[in-house]
Parts: sequence; C-alpha cells; structure tokens
Amino acid sequence: MSGERLIYLPLGGAGEIGMNAYVYGYGKKGEERLILVDLGVAFSDMETTPGVDLILPDIAWLAERADRLEAIFITHAHEDHVGAVAHHYEALQAPIYARAFTGNIARRKMAEQGHPEDAVHLASAWPETVQAGPFTVGFLPVSHSIPESAALVIDTPEGRLIHSGDFKIDSNPVVGEAFDPDLWAEVSSVGVRALMCDSTNVFSTHPGRSESEVGPAIEELVASAPGMVVATTFASNVARLKTLAEAGDRAGRSIVLLGRAMRRMVEAAVQSGVLSDFPSVVSPEDATQIPRENLMLLVTGSQGERRAASAQLARGKYLGLEMKEGDLFLFSSKTIPGNESGVIRIINQFSEKGIDVVDDTSGRYHVSGHANRPDLERLQDIVAPQMVIPMHGEHRHLREHVRLAESKGRMGIIATNGTMLNLSGNAPTVEEYIDVTKTYLDGSIKIGALDGVVRDRIRMALNGIVVVTIILEDDEPLGEPWVELMGLPETGRSKAALAEVLEADLAQAVGRAGAKTLMNDDALEELLRKQARKTAMDEIGRKPEAMVVISRLG
Amino acid sequence: MSGERLIYLPLGGAGEIGMNAYVYGYGKKGEERLILVDLGVAFSDMETTPGVDLILPDIAWLAERADRLEAIFITHAHEDHVGAVAHHYEALQAPIYARAFTGNIARRKMAEQGHPEDAVHLASAWPETVQAGPFTVGFLPVSHSIPESAALVIDTPEGRLIHSGDFKIDSNPVVGEAFDPDLWAEVSSVGVRALMCDSTNVFSTHPGRSESEVGPAIEELVASAPGMVVATTFASNVARLKTLAEAGDRAGRSIVLLGRAMRRMVEAAVQSGVLSDFPSVVSPEDATQIPRENLMLLVTGSQGERRAASAQLARGKYLGLEMKEGDLFLFSSKTIPGNESGVIRIINQFSEKGIDVVDDTSGRYHVSGHANRPDLERLQDIVAPQMVIPMHGEHRHLREHVRLAESKGRMGIIATNGTMLNLSGNAPTVEEYIDVTKTYLDGSIKIGALDGVVRDRIRMALNGIVVVTIILEDDEPLGEPWVELMGLPETGRSKAALAEVLEADLAQAVGRAGAKTLMNDDALEELLRKQARKTAMDEIGRKPEAMVVISRLG
Repeated sequence: MSGERLIYLPLGGAGEIGMNAYVYGYGKKGEERLILVDLGVAFSDMETTPGVDLILPDIAWLAERADRLEAIFITHAHEDHVGAVAHHYEALQAPIYARAFTGNIARRKMAEQGHPEDAVHLASAWPETVQAGPFTVGFLPVSHSIPESAALVIDTPEGRLIHSGDFKIDSNPVVGEAFDPDLWAEVSSVGVRALMCDSTNVFSTHPGRSESEVGPAIEELVASAPGMVVATTFASNVARLKTLAEAGDRAGRSIVLLGRAMRRMVEAAVQSGVLSDFPSVVSPEDATQIPRENLMLLVTGSQGERRAASAQLARGKYLGLEMKEGDLFLFSSKTIPGNESGVIRIINQFSEKGIDVVDDTSGRYHVSGHANRPDLERLQDIVAPQMVIPMHGEHRHLREHVRLAESKGRMGIIATNGTMLNLSGNAPTVEEYIDVTKTYLDGSIKIGALDGVVRDRIRMALNGIVVVTIILEDDEPLGEPWVELMGLPETGRSKAALAEVLEADLAQAVGRAGAKTLMNDDALEELLRKQARKTAMDEIGRKPEAMVVISRLG
Repeated sequence: MSGERLIYLPLGGAGEIGMNAYVYGYGKKGEERLILVDLGVAFSDMETTPGVDLILPDIAWLAERADRLEAIFITHAHEDHVGAVAHHYEALQAPIYARAFTGNIARRKMAEQGHPEDAVHLASAWPETVQAGPFTVGFLPVSHSIPESAALVIDTPEGRLIHSGDFKIDSNPVVGEAFDPDLWAEVSSVGVRALMCDSTNVFSTHPGRSESEVGPAIEELVASAPGMVVATTFASNVARLKTLAEAGDRAGRSIVLLGRAMRRMVEAAVQSGVLSDFPSVVSPEDATQIPRENLMLLVTGSQGERRAASAQLARGKYLGLEMKEGDLFLFSSKTIPGNESGVIRIINQFSEKGIDVVDDTSGRYHVSGHANRPDLERLQDIVAPQMVIPMHGEHRHLREHVRLAESKGRMGIIATNGTMLNLSGNAPTVEEYIDVTKTYLDGSIKIGALDGVVRDRIRMALNGIVVVTIILEDDEPLGEPWVELMGLPETGRSKAALAEVLEADLAQAVGRAGAKTLMNDDALEELLRKQARKTAMDEIGRKPEAMVVISRLG
C-alpha cells in the first residue's frame, strides 16, 4: 500500500458552527478517490454579511477534483448539513446518499433548483452499506433533534472511521430510533481508527437530557393555560412537534400548523414514515371558528425571524388568527447566539399585548439535541477510537474537545476548515493547508467572501455615500460638479444643505485644478473624492464613501 | 393647591434598556417647574443603527420647555445615565447636580464638548439636599457596580418620591457605601408616594450576590495561573478592579492598566476619594521587563469591542505586550445581549493561540450590579410606597415588575417613554402621550431616528446600489446612460459584466422613451430606476437601491 494515504479535509463546520462539509479521500497523493460528508449552509447576519441570503461552504478545491468525487453522504436533514446540496450540485455532480426522511428533504431542494431528484439515493440503515470507490459507508442511527439522524461508519483500506454527525445520547427520543449503545459497541468492536465527533455542546458539563423529559412539563403548561396556546420550535424537531401537538390534543385543543416550514416538515415526516400518529390538524380558516381556549398553534419562528409566523402574530393578525391578553406563547426552543435581539423584540411585542411568554430559561420546555460533555466522554468510551478529531464547533469547542480526548488518554487534533490531515499513520498529521473561504448566495448569484461586495455594503452602511458627477467638454468642466447623498444627514455644522456645501467646495476644487488633473480621470476622481470627504468631515464629522462619475463630451 | 399637578415623564430608559432620562414636574398644567433625572446614552448596533456613534434620548419636549427646567440630577456615572449630559447641554442649559465621583466624570464630558465644567455642581449625600424649584432632592447612597451611586429622594408639595437609580442590595460592596436598610427605612418612614424603580433584573429569581463574594474565587484563580493573567471588566466597576488588582498583588504580580477608560476611571476614583488603597501599577513599557508569571493586566473590552485592549491582545501585540500559550484571560463580566458575537470572536482568537479563557458561565467571577427579584421585593417592603413605577427595562421587564408590585398588594403602572403620568391623585393616571423617538449622534451631527438616514444605510447594506447617470441636451439623450455599482456582484446570470448589461438595457429603455418622458425629470428617473431594478432582478436575483442622476445641458 506504499504511497496510498487516507485523508480528511473539512471545508466547512470546523472552526465555526454551521455549513458542514467534510472530505475524506483515499489513494495515492493527488489521486485520492473522494467522498463528501454533509453539505450544509450557514445563515447571514447584518453585522458581517448584510444582504446575503445564505452562506455556503467554499467547495472550489473539491470542484476542481469533481472527477474523483465518488459520492456525497448526508447525515441528517438540518439546514447546516443538507442546505447546500442543491446549490452546489452543478459543480459536484456526484450521487447523493441519505436515509429516507433526509432524502425526502434533499429531493425537495433539488427539485426547487431544477436538479434531478433521482440524484438523491435513499439508503437503508446499518448494517446495509453503500460502496463509494475505496469507501464502504453505512448509516448508523443516532438520536438527535430531527428524525433519522445517522452517524456514518466509513470503512477504508486503513480501517474503520466513524463520523458522528450531530447527535445526542437519548434512550427515549419520542420519534425515531433511540441511541443503541450495544449496536455502537458492536460496530466499534473491530477497532476504530478515528472518531470525527460533534463538539457543539462540549462546554455543557451536565449529562444531556432526554427528549421525553419535556413532555410532562409541556402537558401541564398547556392544560393549565386559560386562553389560546401558541408554541414554536424548530420545524425540523418532529419529536417536539409531536410532544406539543399531543399536549394540545390531550387538553382538548385543536392543533393548527402555521408557517410553511412547519407544514412541510410534518408532511415529509409522514411521507417518509417516521411520523405515524400525529394528532389531526385544522386549517387556520377553520380555527377562527373554534373558541380560543380550545386552540393550540404550532408556529414557525423560534429564532424571532421577522417573516415567520411568530413575528407576524407578535405584530398582529396572521391568517385571521390573533393573540390576545391572557393567551400564552411558548418558546420550546433555545435562542441561538446572535438571534437574541429578534427573539426579545417579539417577547416585548407580546408583552405590550398582555400575552404571557414562556421561554427556555427554566429549562423545562426544551432540551438540546447535542451531546454534552459527559455524553461525549461516554461515546468515546464506547467507540474507543485510536484518535478523536473534533468537528462541528468554533475553535474554542474543538480545542476543548481535544483536551477532553487527551484527558482520557486518547490522541486528538484540531483540524479547522482547510486543514488536510493524513490519517494513515499511527498519529494524525497535517499534510497541507488549503485556502478555504466561504461562498455567499446573494440573490441568485454566488460570490466569494473575499470579493469585496459585502465589504462595500458594510462601508456604505457605516459611512453613507456621496455620489459626485461632473461633465467635461474638451477637458474643461461643463458646469459645476453635482452631488447626491444617501445615508447621510441633510444638513451639517453650517446648517446649510450638505449637498450644496459639498457642491460649492467641489466647484472651487475643480476651479483650482490644473489642466493635467482635468485631463486625467484618475487624478480628477481622486481630487473630487478627497475634497468630498474633507468637506463632509468638516460639516458632519465623518468621511463618507465617495463615488465619482466623470462624463466627457466632445 | 387646586390646579397643580405632579407629573412623571420618562423620555428614555422606560421600554428599553439604556439612555435613561426621566422628567418630574410640579405646578399648574402647562406651567410645571421641571427637573430631569439622568441623561444617558445607548449604544448603536449594525443591525438597527449602522454607522451611528451614540443613541441619545429625544429631548425635544423638554428643550421646548427649557425655561422651566430647574436642574438635572445624575444618579451615577454609568454611560446610560450620564453619557448624554454634554451632548444635550446646549439645548437644556440647566445646572447639573451629582455626587463627587459622578460629577468628576460629568465634568470631563463637559470639557470634551467645550461646555463649562462648573455647570456640574457636586452634591453631598443625604441628609443634605438641593432645592430645585418646588423640588427638594437628596442623594441617598445605594450599592451598585460603580462608586457613589445614589437613589434620589425627591420631596414635592404632594409628598416624597424615591427614584431608585440603578441599584443592588449589597452589604459589602468592596468599594463605597453598603446598602443601609436602616437609613432607607428612616427616609421612607414619612411615607413615600411613589417608588420609581430599576427593573433590569426582575426576571432573576435568586437573591443577588455581594460584590465581596467574587474576591476569593478570583484570588484562587489568579494565584494558580502559571503564566500571565489578563482580566477584563467594565472600567467603571471600580470595586471589581480593586478586587482583581488585589488578587494580582497578593499573588506577587505587578498590575498593569491597559486601555484609556481603565486608566481614567481609576484616576477619577482616586481623585474623588472613593478609591484609596489601590495597588501600585506599572506602565506597559516597564511591564515588558517583568516575567509574565509576575504580571496581571487589567484591560478594557469586556464586551468584545473591536478597538479595546482585549481585542487588540486577541489579535496580537498591544503596547509591546503579547499573550502566549499557557496565559489566562478572565472575563470578570457579563456579556450584554447583542455583544455575544464580538466576545466569542475574541475567545476563539485566544483559543487559536492556546490561551485559556475563563468567562462568567460558572458565575464565580462576576456578580450583577442590579437588584434581583427578591431584592426588589425587599426594597418595596422597606420603602412601602403607595405606588410602584418601574423604569430601566424593556416592556417585558416593566410588565413583570408591575405584576410583582401587584402581587404584594401595591399599585403599579407601566409607563414607557413618552407616557406622562399624573401622580397627584390616589392612583397614577396617564395624562398624555408625548411623541418621543430617539436622537442619533452621527459623526458630529444629531439626527432624528425617523429622519430616514439610517433606513437608507440599512437599505444600501441589504441591497447594494446602482447609480445611473444620463446627460441630455435639449431634451435628447447625449450618449447612453452610464452605470456605477457598489455592493453588487460584478457579473450575473448572463456572465457578462453587470454594469454593461444594465447600460445596454437602460439605453434601450431610453431609446423607447417618448419625448414627454425625456422632458420630465421625474418620469425619466422613474423609467431608469424601474429598468435598472428589473434588469438587476433578471441578472442577479435582487433589486438594488437605484440612484439616478440626470444632467441637462443647453
């Protein structure tokens, strides 16, 4: 086997939370046959990525080697694992494998983008496997906050790898398969070279709680509520939806699903067979005829998203339904860091209407879908891998996870996006650093994170913009420069209109300019830009972005 | 006294956290003599207020009545209570009263803005009082996370009011006066008509902890650290600075203060006499000569601010000092909601350098400066006010605080910014709603929150901008429209340069336009704007902002 190597290369999800994408390869250097595990998205925010629709992993390295890509495997149907599958399909063109529920979601995404649905192959759970070049891959069921999550058992010529995917250790997950320690022990008994492991909750020191634990508390809350009850959670948390709906049903309430994602997920879960006994639901129209104390709404928008059902209800009527004083709104969810302001805005809007809001601060109505530190230890004990390679986490999570492994006498290594590891030897070694950035889906276009487009948007947002137009004829100014402003105060220190003060100063600057400057676009632009920024600084105390448009006639 | 009324009008801080400003008035309707309590700022964020330097209360109502304003009282030196005092001085021109430490800070702010420092009068603590028209105001010492915090005892012709300011109930606050329940009981014994009360921590159900409780834990942590220790907290938390510095001192470490705010606060505290036995400090230059295990740095930037010392150290060297693997960084502070991403960025940067970070998740190294729910109850019991009027909080906090008061058999009322209450009767009544918005300090200019300037910035950030210029002579186009882009992808669906595709489509549109359109600036602008947005939608899947500049010659 001399010359062959087994490589691991995260392209997304290692050194950040979200947009997971992990490459495995085996073969001679530069000729490895490759597989990709997960192809997810991350979400934009106003602070770093204004206007961006979705953040996708930068797959340039892989796209250049698409001829060597055998297959793509998706562990589960969360957006940060499956969300980019259709957006990057054109560049990769490889068959996609997933279990039924995940595959159902992936196929909808493919269809939406006009790609063939049958590129998504439905795979059965372990012990069945998929052959992909030198790799044999099996979907090992694992509990998480979405149906049919799977770890991957990746058999390679250099031994077995386990890629955990997102997981928790739950013996009673309400919907889908419980974590089966015996099965995991059996799979691991042949010896596991490396465990690539979820790090999301490595800083949570208490053992993770079971999904089944929230049921009684939710039931009690819903039963005792005097008015309408509205609950939100991630639509993909089908187990939680079931728990919520059943609590409503037992309290004699009709169930209403509000929000497209909510209806789609329940539909997908029923279609793929993971959800069989969900209480019957009524339409929003029919719900308006039912007394409010007999209603329970399950709505999208657990993260305070402006357009989701929760935010609409916080603002007023939505599809004929309206919350009132004495009603109850339940966040059966955790607020993801960065989303606090949106969630708090909604809570205050409900407060103004006299609606009681219950959130996850008590810990009674939500449990995490990720393995906490003691659960990560337990998994390591069951799998007993030769090495632990943390993924799904920011640098601090990966570092802490390596420490955890080392504290248990195992090898661990931090490999962030772009770090290619060689797993062939007795210890993992860094082979190479690949330049990996991010790709922004912006409207219908993909742009690179370093293209400067978003940087310019941030600058305009921080500084406002001055647009200066000037017309010249035969290198002589025809009239004076003209100024338009956007995102700037109308008047400054002198109390005169800022645009007029700018125009006066720019006209003077042009009047003073020599023929050489007037002849040269770059020099003239520089002159006008500098003057505009200087005048603005005097007038309003800040330097705006400046755009200069020079038109030459004759 | 017929016709006289006692009014209360929050202009900032009620219905939000930050930029506190509360008006009290007494007299005939429309002739009330007024005082203002606190005049603070709030901080901008990229999501809602990009480019804004500071958010100030909208004092338009008060400025119109400045001739009736007797005085401004500042409870303590936090920015959200004192920060706007110099920015709004010109419009209000009233004497400012504060205790020595607070006054010291206020005077620096006045000097910086070129206002007279002696407009700030230093007041002694209760039982001394200041006469301000019909009001007699005393500074009643109270514990908080900054020296010399005071509640205000406001005696009016209609009885005594107590304005809590920010406070906690701490019998051992390390620096400054302990909360003195006997003094508060004595002050309240004459009967208190209304308690205006801090609501920040109304949702925290455990009793608040004393500042003195963090000392031993910090001392242990610092003593056991093998390398350099760097700690951050709010610079104004002088008690914490003392605790941190003493922990360093006892562990044989030299203390270094990094960051302008850190040095200024210690200076102000020493000057005003509230801090007397602070360990001696060494300069950053001298510190470079001291072994790292003998150093303890106290640095600014507990909220992850990009330019503060903490962020600089996370990126690399700062004033010759550099953190290394094995060093320790301590956040002896809480991350304020909204600042998570900045703090997490720093933690990850430290993680990459192998530096251990300890934050407040354990609760061992930080305590809050605000009264928790049981402490709020205790204060109500001591003061036994006729009515409770919550302030310092979002709507949800105010609502919960009113509920708390009502659960104890007291009257409470929610009064958000702009709500004028009449406190003369047996129960508070709403007299009037005043239109109150916010004022943005933007560079050197104050702009209204509703002026549209920030809205335009947000739009440019979300959508990018197309600038179209066209020249006409005698109502006939002279050449073709010209396009410049900012914050938009260079190429779209057709793979041609977006600017060129836009120019071609715009030229066609102009070619099709009738004479009536070409003659009319509004019609021509509308035509070009619509076409630009339509073409962009086709090419890049989004509609940018469009600015059209029409130049007419001849």
